[in-house]
Amino acid sequence: IAPILINVEDYHQAAKAKLPKMVYDYYRAGADDELTLQDNVNAFRRIKLRPRVFVNVAHHDRDENSCSVTLLNGQTKCSFPLLFAPSAMHRMADNKGGERSTARAAVRANTVMILSTLSTTRIEDVADEHQKALKEYPQSTSQLWFQLYILKDREFTTRLVQRAEKAGFRALVVTVDASRFGNREADRRNSFRLPADMQLENLYDAGLKQADGKHDSALNDYIAKNLDATLTWKDIQWLRQISRLPIIVKGIMTAEDAQLAVQAGVDGIVVSNHGARQIDTTFSTIEVLPEIVSAVRRIETTKKVDIYLDGGVRRGTDILKAVALGADAVLIGRPILWGLAVGGCQGVVDVIDIFKREFKLAVMLCGCTSLPNGNNISSSPYSHLVAMPRSRL
Amino acid sequence: IAPILINVEDYHQAAKAKLPKMVYDYYRAGADDELTLQDNVNAFRRIKLRPRVFVNVAHHDRDENSCSVTLLNGQTKCSFPLLFAPSAMHRMADNKGGERSTARAAVRANTVMILSTLSTTRIEDVADEHQKALKEYPQSTSQLWFQLYILKDREFTTRLVQRAEKAGFRALVVTVDASRFGNREADRRNSFRLPADMQLENLYDAGLKQADGKHDSALNDYIAKNLDATLTWKDIQWLRQISRLPIIVKGIMTAEDAQLAVQAGVDGIVVSNHGARQIDTTFSTIEVLPEIVSAVRRIETTKKVDIYLDGGVRRGTDILKAVALGADAVLIGRPILWGLAVGGCQGVVDVIDIFKREFKLAVMLCGCTSLPNGNNISSSPYSHLVAMPRSRL
Amino acid sequence: IAPILINVEDYHQAAKAKLPKMVYDYYRAGADDELTLQDNVNAFRRIKLRPRVFVNVAHHDRDENSCSVTLLNGQTKCSFPLLFAPSAMHRMADNKGGERSTARAAVRANTVMILSTLSTTRIEDVADEHQKALKEYPQSTSQLWFQLYILKDREFTTRLVQRAEKAGFRALVVTVDASRFGNREADRRNSFRLPADMQLENLYDAGLKQADGKHDSALNDYIAKNLDATLTWKDIQWLRQISRLPIIVKGIMTAEDAQLAVQAGVDGIVVSNHGARQIDTTFSTIEVLPEIVSAVRRIETTKKVDIYLDGGVRRGTDILKAVALGADAVLIGRPILWGLAVGGCQGVVDVIDIFKREFKLAVMLCGCTSLPNGNNISSSPYSHLVAMPRSRL
Amino acid sequence: IAPILINVEDYHQAAKAKLPKMVYDYYRAGADDELTLQDNVNAFRRIKLRPRVFVNVAHHDRDENSCSVTLLNGQTKCSFPLLFAPSAMHRMADNKGGERSTARAAVRANTVMILSTLSTTRIEDVADEHQKALKEYPQSTSQLWFQLYILKDREFTTRLVQRAEKAGFRALVVTVDASRFGNREADRRNSFRLPADMQLENLYDAGLKQADGKHDSALNDYIAKNLDATLTWKDIQWLRQISRLPIIVKGIMTAEDAQLAVQAGVDGIVVSNHGARQIDTTFSTIEVLPEIVSAVRRIETTKKVDIYLDGGVRRGTDILKAVALGADAVLIGRPILWGLAVGGCQGVVDVIDIFKREFKLAVMLCGCTSLPNGNNISSSPYSHLVAMPRSRL
Ligand SMILES: Cc1cc2nc3c(=O)[nH]c(=O)nc-3n(C[C@H](O)[C@H](O)[C@H](O)COP(=O)(O)O)c2cc1C
Ligand SMILES: Cc1cc2nc3c(=O)[nH]c(=O)nc-3n(C[C@H](O)[C@H](O)[C@H](O)COP(=O)(O)O)c2cc1C
Ligand SMILES: Cc1cc2nc3c(=O)[nH]c(=O)nc-3n(C[C@H](O)[C@H](O)[C@H](O)COP(=O)(O)O)c2cc1C
Ligand SMILES: Cc1cc2nc3c(=O)[nH]c(=O)nc-3n(C[C@H](O)[C@H](O)[C@H](O)COP(=O)(O)O)c2cc1C
Repeated sequence: IAPILINVEDYHQAAKAKLPKMVYDYYRAGADDELTLQDNVNAFRRIKLRPRVFVNVAHHDRDENSCSVTLLNGQTKCSFPLLFAPSAMHRMADNKGGERSTARAAVRANTVMILSTLSTTRIEDVADEHQKALKEYPQSTSQLWFQLYILKDREFTTRLVQRAEKAGFRALVVTVDASRFGNREADRRNSFRLPADMQLENLYDAGLKQADGKHDSALNDYIAKNLDATLTWKDIQWLRQISRLPIIVKGIMTAEDAQLAVQAGVDGIVVSNHGARQIDTTFSTIEVLPEIVSAVRRIETTKKVDIYLDGGVRRGTDILKAVALGADAVLIGRPILWGLAVGGCQGVVDVIDIFKREFKLAVMLCGCTSLPNGNNISSSPYSHLVAMPRSRL
Repeated sequence: IAPILINVEDYHQAAKAKLPKMVYDYYRAGADDELTLQDNVNAFRRIKLRPRVFVNVAHHDRDENSCSVTLLNGQTKCSFPLLFAPSAMHRMADNKGGERSTARAAVRANTVMILSTLSTTRIEDVADEHQKALKEYPQSTSQLWFQLYILKDREFTTRLVQRAEKAGFRALVVTVDASRFGNREADRRNSFRLPADMQLENLYDAGLKQADGKHDSALNDYIAKNLDATLTWKDIQWLRQISRLPIIVKGIMTAEDAQLAVQAGVDGIVVSNHGARQIDTTFSTIEVLPEIVSAVRRIETTKKVDIYLDGGVRRGTDILKAVALGADAVLIGRPILWGLAVGGCQGVVDVIDIFKREFKLAVMLCGCTSLPNGNNISSSPYSHLVAMPRSRL
Repeated sequence: IAPILINVEDYHQAAKAKLPKMVYDYYRAGADDELTLQDNVNAFRRIKLRPRVFVNVAHHDRDENSCSVTLLNGQTKCSFPLLFAPSAMHRMADNKGGERSTARAAVRANTVMILSTLSTTRIEDVADEHQKALKEYPQSTSQLWFQLYILKDREFTTRLVQRAEKAGFRALVVTVDASRFGNREADRRNSFRLPADMQLENLYDAGLKQADGKHDSALNDYIAKNLDATLTWKDIQWLRQISRLPIIVKGIMTAEDAQLAVQAGVDGIVVSNHGARQIDTTFSTIEVLPEIVSAVRRIETTKKVDIYLDGGVRRGTDILKAVALGADAVLIGRPILWGLAVGGCQGVVDVIDIFKREFKLAVMLCGCTSLPNGNNISSSPYSHLVAMPRSRL
Repeated sequence: IAPILINVEDYHQAAKAKLPKMVYDYYRAGADDELTLQDNVNAFRRIKLRPRVFVNVAHHDRDENSCSVTLLNGQTKCSFPLLFAPSAMHRMADNKGGERSTARAAVRANTVMILSTLSTTRIEDVADEHQKALKEYPQSTSQLWFQLYILKDREFTTRLVQRAEKAGFRALVVTVDASRFGNREADRRNSFRLPADMQLENLYDAGLKQADGKHDSALNDYIAKNLDATLTWKDIQWLRQISRLPIIVKGIMTAEDAQLAVQAGVDGIVVSNHGARQIDTTFSTIEVLPEIVSAVRRIETTKKVDIYLDGGVRRGTDILKAVALGADAVLIGRPILWGLAVGGCQGVVDVIDIFKREFKLAVMLCGCTSLPNGNNISSSPYSHLVAMPRSRL
């Protein structure tokens, strides 16, 4: 008989049991010795909550949307501060549905899905499915955002952006931490390659085919050849010229870069180490969040710049910690894939449901009547909700 | 042949061997990943004692009551600074005796038992047994206190309080950290429910029956529906109106809330994270004790406000550390249940005996002639008895 | 074939294999959960050496006595800063030789043996053997010191002191951390008792016989009854009246008590937690050494007060760390017993030889031309030789 | 089938499987309990990188030599900041090729090989092979440097230096941390000795033969007898008189000694604890690098003094951390031996290739356009690239 799946780790284990090793490893792995991979999770555990008691929190029980958040200066609304991080190749987890299942789950969970450039479903097909689901769940405010790798071929990149915009995607999430891909040894040991019946559909369209590989991770090699390592903050201006969508940069790990991003005029940043897949022995993301929040909030800007965080979010308490430390919302990566592998669209919905139940319970048990708005950390009633270890190390 | 049980962990292991898994798990478990559950115990271990030598401590050998404490401004006297924490459903550990066995043990150990709202024995029956035992052990100064969950149904709650007061309970311990119940995954995996021949007797009387459950913790669901999440410090005033008993609030984890409690006029507070059963990744209780003691002692009050602590107390040295850091006494939760499971009333008495022997030995070996009175921490001769790690994290 | 024994841990394991469990446990065990037992060893490992290079240290190779130390204001000389800590009942390790083997080993190792009050050989017999050995090794400057438990029966205690003085013992080491004996659970589980053919010879003489025990540590009970828990620093004056031997107090763990000891006029103190056998979760001894050294050295005294340390010394580098942090010498406890169990007198000599070789190697590799004299820590050329963790915890 | 070897640890495990235990242990082992051996590796892991993004780093992809470094005031050029540390007896790993294979690998990897005094190939034969390889790879700028143990017999030592200089070695690396050899217990347990068909060729020439050993490490004994423990900084002047080669001292672990070295006029220092083979419980080398860099850079010198570091470098990120903290380059010891054991010359080339790929990837992913020059740490654009734990302990 099937075991009861009651937390994210249960979904992880069930997915592990179900997926081919090559696929599981691709989803799970991090760079080098995977120290940061562990640390992304463990850092959350080292941070302590300071629960307040005897506060009237009964509305969280009654009101489904008591923890909803508004993002991108009002353009976007999520049922609670959790979005779907972009991740490549969903059809390896759910052959039939793939990214379309995920899009449908985003609608049901009433939140944003960020589609990866490296999806195994065409941009337009994901958008279609999303539209269809929105009609079935008209109360949902779900949106699609598009994660962009700016490739060496700028014309092709321009076409990608235009396709996304045309298909109804509402924001561009530019990944800035991938001048090359990290050293993911599991993939190299498995000679990772996409199963024969799948393609990187968005790239394939452009006439690019994935190379074949023997002893090494062929796909990474292929993509590495197309990633543009000359990118600088000026390229954000180039992007502004070809699209009017809000721009979020993903992969900021220092206060210095956060400031450059704000100066470049972005609408949001994602504090991320790419799920520890790029470079090992960086900090966990939650540990650098405070320095980035205070750097960003120190700059006067006409519009509000959103701050997101991803990496290692596995419990509702993790979300609360990120929000209390100044994030507008978190993104989750691997848990989506575990849900998808276990039960397709429904599996993802179930995983998000766990996050939501745990998050609301944490909010109530910590005595939070509302969420901090992330805009003004010092006046937040929750500035003392979490306690960071004195030294980040 | 039965192994010799010489410390609390021995009783834990013996109880584990004896109890049905579902019951054992219910007693043992904490919230989520049980990190705080471990930390409650480990934090005591990180704190170091500074033993003084060549002090005349011979009276502790002679005088049975050399470590007795006076609580609630003189109303209560215990043989040493340890009370029984409230815990639900004692009949699962000791079917026949249940809470009556525990009450009898409290008399023999000469200390306070705090009866849980969620007992499997009626308030009045526990009181009767307590009275009977007091007659057999007339030198005992044991008292019963009543732990109160303020339920949505205020009339029913009022009746509970009145019944306790009438039955001779001497204080109310209001649990303030349970706007909802925590995520105890073990119970959910076991579909925890009360054995068929037991009831939450105090709630049953009121016509409330426990729901039946299949895949989830039915009991928690049931109680969750009745817990009142609107409670605030104003409800302490309401309670004052329906009862003249001293009021102690249980579940304080921050200096801020400790101050609100004192301002609300309580007679005592229990620094507690509910045995790590409510929210995970909070601090251990002993780590927050100092901030709470100094916050409370800074406020001028006409009466002394008692400070208790529970969570992870497993050794006599733990009690000494809590007292030296400013607690008037500690409460113990699970160790009572292990004693009860192993040997009923006698088992509890044996466990308390271990605590007392270990505590007095620690007092002697640390060169304490008397206990700090907890009232005036700075002038205490023992302010340097314990050394806390520099960072709490 | 017998394994080669090249370090102290090898002797420990060989002794464990050879000794009856009850005896091994008695020797090995610490109080309660044995956390301090581990910490005594681990704390040394956390402290780091800062080796200096290109210093002429060749004389350590040539000169057997290049690391010898002078103690008790010139009365005593040891071949290197290591003495034998007092420990009870050596005949359990070496039935025939017992404490006489140890005394002979002290002569051959050219250092001090401190004989325990609780020896299984009479004071006078140990002294005889020591004299005999000194004649065989006339170049040795070894001495016997007597460890004293001041018992409730002061007349008997006086006789013990007089016997030791008459037999040629050169100092009294008064144990001050034993108002009672600690909770050594291993002994209780084993119902520890002396083997039938042995006695606590010094106490037996006085007509005291050891009790018989069933389920508990009979010997500890017996001794506990005779230990005097009324002792204070005034009793040092009493001792001065009955003996003119130098007095060293053993069991100091705080700067406060170190100062009281110096004010009471002692000739030396031993920083010791009794090998972690008295109270658990105290500091390791090496962690408190600095606070004690600076407290003692701050007091102006006419004579120099020696500072010894014991607990967890297992490597030559440990001795160097203790000396560099201000100790005049270390005492070793259990390693002596492992040597005795493995090879009687020769086993002890071998263990000491390991310590000496390792110590001299550490001295050379750290570039120490001579040892710090312990008298004047701030002007010591080695004040920067060791680095302590910033927080002691 | 042979497993794919994709990182240094893979080579370690493959070498372990292939080498006789005695040889493997000799290569692997450290002093005493090998705590510093572990810490050399673990300390790198505790240090965190702060990756910068959206920096144009594309030239690292195009330019093979984008990370090359110039050493010894322009005399030496390496393809990236990694040199071969001196290690004894390469023929045990690669019987036929031995040090000649390593020299050839250095040419192919375009870096420096430091030949150990204790090589199993004659100085002149290594130099010949190196010349031959340089002709095959004319674009390589590889050099040989000679590691010198100054022996008691100064005439013999002079001849060694003259032979090396004549054979074309370009620098002398004087090991200063070996007044004696450390306590490597593995060697003692294995009664380590050179296989019958090998010699310490450079010492053999001088008529010195290695002793035979039964139960102890015969070789260490032999060498220990010839190591000169009288050495001081004055002997650098002596060396200057017999050779005009640049002098680098290897084995500095404190700011104090680094300053003495600079004052003695050396051309470079190697921060090293001899691969944790000399004294246990010293600091890891990377932890002391900052204090040494700032001490050296504070002194005004006419020529630049190079700072190298070795010990525990196993990943490309380790090299980046060392360089960002002020090292001009790192030396690697054991990884060379694992490569040699697995595949002779080619094995070493492969290991270096791994280091280079990982290093360049780290450089790119951290957004470094160029390497810090190590000369002027405060003005380096990378002074904030790495974050050290607050306390070194
Ligand atoms: C299998 C996988 C594929 C990913 N693909 C992309 C991608 O295509 N583009 C991108 O910007 N990030 C990608 N990421 C990174 C995620 O967006 C996100 O930063 C990370 O997964 C968050 O950490 P978490 O998995 O611990 O929640 C990927 C992550 C994983 C695990
Ligand atoms: C099985 C169990 C049931 C409990 N039931 C209650 C309860 O009904 N009311 C309450 O206020 N606390 C309850 N608690 C919390 C205890 O009062 C106490 O805070 C906690 O057990 C102390 O930690 P310890 O078990 O580590 O000693 C319960 C704890 C346990 C373990
Ligand atoms: C088996 C044993 C017996 C001991 N007996 C005595 C004793 O009779 N008197 C005393 O002062 N200390 C006694 N001690 C404590 C030692 O003198 C010393 O403080 C301790 O062993 C030092 O720690 P170490 O064993 O880690 O070196 C004893 C210790 C052991 C292990
Ligand atoms: C097997 C072995 C032999 C060594 N022989 C020498 C030597 O002859 N001379 C020397 O100066 N250092 C010697 N070393 C030390 C190395 O030069 C270097 O300091 C050390 O190996 C660096 O640490 P790593 O092995 O962790 O990279 C030796 C190290 C090893 C492992």
